[in-house]
Amino acid sequence: MRMYDLILKKRNGEELTTEEINYFIDSYTKGKIPDYQASALLMAIYFQKMNRRETADLTMAMAHSGDVLNLSSIEGIKVDKHSTGGVGDTTTLVLGPMVAALGIPVAKMSGRGLGHTGGTIDKLESFEGFSVEMSEEEFISNVNKIKLVVGGQTGNLAPADKKLYALRDVTATVDNISLIASSIMSKKIAAGADCIVLDVKVGEGAFMKNKEAAFQLAEEMVSIGKSVGRNTVAVISDMNQPLGYAIGNALEVKEAIDTLKGKGPKDLYELCLTLGSHMVVLAGKAEDEAHGRRLLMETIENGKALEKLKEFVRAQGGEDTSIEHIENLPRAEYITPVISDKNGYVGKIHAERMGIIAAELGAGRATKEDIIDLAVGLVLVKKVGDKISKGDTLAYVYANDKEKGEKAVNNILNNYEISVERAEDIPLIYGIVK
Amino acid sequence: MRMYDLILKKRNGEELTTEEINYFIDSYTKGKIPDYQASALLMAIYFQKMNRRETADLTMAMAHSGDVLNLSSIEGIKVDKHSTGGVGDTTTLVLGPMVAALGIPVAKMSGRGLGHTGGTIDKLESFEGFSVEMSEEEFISNVNKIKLVVGGQTGNLAPADKKLYALRDVTATVDNISLIASSIMSKKIAAGADCIVLDVKVGEGAFMKNKEAAFQLAEEMVSIGKSVGRNTVAVISDMNQPLGYAIGNALEVKEAIDTLKGKGPKDLYELCLTLGSHMVVLAGKAEDEAHGRRLLMETIENGKALEKLKEFVRAQGGEDTSIEHIENLPRAEYITPVISDKNGYVGKIHAERMGIIAAELGAGRATKEDIIDLAVGLVLVKKVGDKISKGDTLAYVYANDKEKGEKAVNNILNNYEISVERAEDIPLIYGIVK
Repeated sequence: MRMYDLILKKRNGEELTTEEINYFIDSYTKGKIPDYQASALLMAIYFQKMNRRETADLTMAMAHSGDVLNLSSIEGIKVDKHSTGGVGDTTTLVLGPMVAALGIPVAKMSGRGLGHTGGTIDKLESFEGFSVEMSEEEFISNVNKIKLVVGGQTGNLAPADKKLYALRDVTATVDNISLIASSIMSKKIAAGADCIVLDVKVGEGAFMKNKEAAFQLAEEMVSIGKSVGRNTVAVISDMNQPLGYAIGNALEVKEAIDTLKGKGPKDLYELCLTLGSHMVVLAGKAEDEAHGRRLLMETIENGKALEKLKEFVRAQGGEDTSIEHIENLPRAEYITPVISDKNGYVGKIHAERMGIIAAELGAGRATKEDIIDLAVGLVLVKKVGDKISKGDTLAYVYANDKEKGEKAVNNILNNYEISVERAEDIPLIYGIVK
Repeated sequence: MRMYDLILKKRNGEELTTEEINYFIDSYTKGKIPDYQASALLMAIYFQKMNRRETADLTMAMAHSGDVLNLSSIEGIKVDKHSTGGVGDTTTLVLGPMVAALGIPVAKMSGRGLGHTGGTIDKLESFEGFSVEMSEEEFISNVNKIKLVVGGQTGNLAPADKKLYALRDVTATVDNISLIASSIMSKKIAAGADCIVLDVKVGEGAFMKNKEAAFQLAEEMVSIGKSVGRNTVAVISDMNQPLGYAIGNALEVKEAIDTLKGKGPKDLYELCLTLGSHMVVLAGKAEDEAHGRRLLMETIENGKALEKLKEFVRAQGGEDTSIEHIENLPRAEYITPVISDKNGYVGKIHAERMGIIAAELGAGRATKEDIIDLAVGLVLVKKVGDKISKGDTLAYVYANDKEKGEKAVNNILNNYEISVERAEDIPLIYGIVK
């Protein structure tokens, strides 16, 4: 088999066989196919597309390009949740304890990653002493015992995806549905999930800017999941404004704790219930979504989800007392209100720019070497549709550098659109694909 | 400027500016842009095309990526001829002396190249002692004195084209009209031509397999030439069967000498007159093509073209007596006739396969290191439309290896299609673009 022929075939609009896709991924991962041939193929795929069969084959080839986690010694059906990424998204920290409280194993491999805020591990390090360092045995025994564990990502999950993504990133071949879908799904499959619930974000603060594309991506991923024996459900949710109020690591942890205490932001709680209800159904613990939703609400009302969070933080060496005393979590030095200079209604909050503002305060990483400031970020007070009077507080900035904090206040003000008339409500959930 | 943005722009179907094209070629030549980004752009160009302005810009950027020959000290208008490549094409060896005999300077930079037979330099080395080693001064003085010189290609003509072509070759991005046209034209322009006559071959033995594509390529190149101030004419000629009778280095030299003596193959002579008449007009030595054709025919009739060949070979150290005594040219040991086992008419001669047969006998190079056998090759006797009786000789094989010769005989027989009815005549010239 020659890579040249694969490029030519795809360029001419033909379908690649399973063997050809396996050859490409295997040889590319091993460094036997040069980047310049891989990028030519990616661009040909961009124009000629891949069908569902090719996309599923690509997914499985990438999933098997490195280690595939064997979670068979974990009891029960392993359901993984994945979000395509948004701003201020704290669902994992809320959903994990809720779902685990129902006896469903949640074994998460997480990363630190680059972005507006840190990854799940960074956020959890807001609990003093919290660590993801553990042996495979501890990992398995933890999840069997308390149903919730977060481990550091092993270095060799879907290395083909990692290598290809880096190439796509510099060759303008990222935005192709098949390539995006297979990238996400290959990692989930390599991480050992039996079932997958996807949160596909759509809107200004998301990778998918319009609903049509988001539904297309959702359908592609659900189709992949089904064709490779991983039952998959996708929820298409809004990311035109940040989810919840907090953007920042410890700030989001606080918000998660609030939510588990039953006093979190409505949109965050609602999204957790929607995603969670599908997880519970896939795990075989509820008959339907309505049933799953009731079970999840009970874990909040009876305090079991909050208890699960404490148990989990303790099990991984973290200081769980700060869950009751959230003032013990990392705190920023300067807290400054952002004051409205207009009357009206909040028409728009530029989600992506809010994320950038948080990152500039120190909440996120631009390069792997950057050190995150867990305390900083912002907390919105008003969201789209809220009535505003001049002098009202729109948001708070949490900073450890006074100047950066002041700059953030101005930036936030510029990215809150105040309109005279109240705009139509933005729906939180656009639809479900299953 | 970032290469990423250029890829994205072209991928989205937008036009690249002159500055962007210059940036790409300049940075790529200098090794500042990686191959994987260049190949992604090439594939995007394959799908989104380039317009005439972009193609002309790309041509000039590549022409100026290395040395541009300064032929200003050569008197007269320099007209270069270029063929897109076929099988058994001996036009350069015939046209050079004819045109030079009319006082038009022919200053050719030639290569050895890879292919079915050697390049012009290899063929000329059939004259013992012939050399292209000379200083720039000798080169210029030769062409001013005798109007015909062939020099070895300098290493640094259009290096961007060389680098890009090598990349296109392995990434399935060769066949795009703009990329083909700019590749050819950039080299001609860097070689210092004032005017260019192109021989665009079409047919089974050519790069362009159909007339439509050949005309498109011709129009593209003529348009480039005009827009950069190089008057250009393209002749679209047939390559469904080999041109003339001979395929092989010394064999083609013999055929060229025969043609200059007025007894060459009709098709080769006719094509030389057509190409040559446009050269003579562009050089300002004839009022129109008919006039140019008459002048060229005179150079054959009065022996001046043959005399010019002798003068030229002598000037470059070659043994010119073999022009009168062609038996002194390199001769193969085994000459074997290919005998027809059928009655009928020659319906088809697979040009490309004939070229491959000659190459397998040792007439061509597959890698730069291969040594060419100047003596070997094949000479057709019957061409398309000729009546055949069982026992007639179709062709002769010239070999220095008996076994290879026998294999060639069989291969030739398999690639001569003999049909019961006489097929329609194939035209030699399909049209002119100017």
